[in-house]
Amino acid sequence: MATVDLKRLAKELGLAVSTVSRALRDSYEISAETKERVFELARKLNYQPNPYASSLRKHKSRTIAVVIPEIANNFFALAINGIESIAQEKGYHVLIYLTHEQYEKEVAITRHLQSGRVDGILVSLSGETTNYDHLVDLKQKGIPIVFFDRIAESINSPKVITNDYESGYKAAEHLIQSGCRRIAYLSISNNLSISNKRMQGYLEALEDHRIKHDPKLAIQCSIHDNEENYKTVIALLKRKNRPDAIFASVERLAIASYHACEELNLSIPGDIRIISFSNLETAALLNPSLTTITQPAFEIGKEAASILFKILEKKSMTFSEERIILNSKLIVRKSTAQ
Amino acid sequence: MATVDLKRLAKELGLAVSTVSRALRDSYEISAETKERVFELARKLNYQPNPYASSLRKHKSRTIAVVIPEIANNFFALAINGIESIAQEKGYHVLIYLTHEQYEKEVAITRHLQSGRVDGILVSLSGETTNYDHLVDLKQKGIPIVFFDRIAESINSPKVITNDYESGYKAAEHLIQSGCRRIAYLSISNNLSISNKRMQGYLEALEDHRIKHDPKLAIQCSIHDNEENYKTVIALLKRKNRPDAIFASVERLAIASYHACEELNLSIPGDIRIISFSNLETAALLNPSLTTITQPAFEIGKEAASILFKILEKKSMTFSEERIILNSKLIVRKSTAQ
Repeated sequence: MATVDLKRLAKELGLAVSTVSRALRDSYEISAETKERVFELARKLNYQPNPYASSLRKHKSRTIAVVIPEIANNFFALAINGIESIAQEKGYHVLIYLTHEQYEKEVAITRHLQSGRVDGILVSLSGETTNYDHLVDLKQKGIPIVFFDRIAESINSPKVITNDYESGYKAAEHLIQSGCRRIAYLSISNNLSISNKRMQGYLEALEDHRIKHDPKLAIQCSIHDNEENYKTVIALLKRKNRPDAIFASVERLAIASYHACEELNLSIPGDIRIISFSNLETAALLNPSLTTITQPAFEIGKEAASILFKILEKKSMTFSEERIILNSKLIVRKSTAQ
Repeated sequence: MATVDLKRLAKELGLAVSTVSRALRDSYEISAETKERVFELARKLNYQPNPYASSLRKHKSRTIAVVIPEIANNFFALAINGIESIAQEKGYHVLIYLTHEQYEKEVAITRHLQSGRVDGILVSLSGETTNYDHLVDLKQKGIPIVFFDRIAESINSPKVITNDYESGYKAAEHLIQSGCRRIAYLSISNNLSISNKRMQGYLEALEDHRIKHDPKLAIQCSIHDNEENYKTVIALLKRKNRPDAIFASVERLAIASYHACEELNLSIPGDIRIISFSNLETAALLNPSLTTITQPAFEIGKEAASILFKILEKKSMTFSEERIILNSKLIVRKSTAQ
């Protein structure tokens, strides 16, 4: 029996080999009808591409990796959907790797990716990462990296981010305009580019409104332990000189804050106002609805993947200076009402 | 310069080769301190394992794949964390593939996985899948499959599920005991094992309580389109003979229902009670808090991964009849209060 290859499929279907190839890659250029015919015959004849052989031959795995800190987070879920929307068009597979916010895990993953398993990598850094050698190594092996959201400023690779500084400023200013003066800022890691910029915006807004910053209100929470964060917020809210607002720099700190207020019988926004960076799907349905700075997560993923594919297609790294900034949106809801 | 291999690392560190190997795989058997020493030297000497070569040689990729329908869903996020907790112990990488509830995507992914990219696969089926040939092919290639949550009954592979029938029964009975008589059942796909069992439980509870089932209250929603589901619930709630309760078989149908009630100014639970299968982190914080049937998602992932590794370690398929059932929990909150 003859080998089932693209040529044979094309011949039996009366289509060009390139059409069959694109249909099998689920390219948007091919009609659903044609794809269906191609898939049906491919299944019938049990056609199999040989990924290992072809990746060794062409140094093309037709696969990209996404390395992210966590999965139970709507920002990353949406960003991945954005990435996949582009990868699907290009006929690429997307592998998702989780670092669980651990530096060692991030190093192990990038090491694992060094030898041609994937054509390119999209990275959002773990909260523990301060040394970037593992990413430099990866670049030196010729594997392009595009950063999104949590970036390494010092590495010369394209970066897709949001206007974190302006958003931090806007969030703090919104609280100040609602009458708050003692605004606690909750962050998960001093290492992260996003945490620092958001906090800079917060500090600048305080200064512009002549509010003296109380360092005791800048709270460093745990990257790993939500239970500990809940206790941290409880302790914060039990202080004699309680803050009148919480600015959560990431979603799960807002959730911890809501649970803490419920435990302490504090009214949001009566006793304390809460604002958070968040892509939480249920933000509008919470009790009370949560005021958010919402990042264009899907678009960030889409943009990062688009840049990576531009690099892969042109086989050049001339995009390395590129920095795309997409704007986040302040969505005012009841948790910051006056 | 001598090649940097495990032997050289072991010699320089004064450790056994097996210790170095396990440290690099981040094994739980090795102390954090030793791992740190090994990682440091490995980084310094730029040690690199060659995954392609070794996978061809040993037919061992030290990688497993998880194929799931969607990522913006707390059940799958938690299940993946459970899977990774086991994979990390075993020194394995986990690749996550998303089908986006599409049959063709699921076929393309399993095809892509046929040639030894991974040692084994954990699968939760897409809502479109009714033909399982692609999974049979995979098994025939000797790649073990373990199903979790959304299973293919007819395939002789281990399965890890929850007590969907009993949970569906319990959820419907809870609504009946709260006084509901016209309970709408919302599902996303008739193809899914979980949807059917949950619905059987619902129907059985109605019958046991002598409530005639109205087929117009069994609503088939969209697998792909949340906007359409929102409109479906709006239409349902605008009917002359409005249901007095909604039983959402998956989380996002509960979210669509909450939004629809807000739009129509209907009170939950006053006008309509809502219960849902859900691992939503914010269920207790919603307005009103949502009564849920909560699956042991983390444990399901952990159990499924454990079985897969048992197969990989014993190199046998004798676990194929295994079926693990973990119980879900009814958590009563305000959305079903009398």
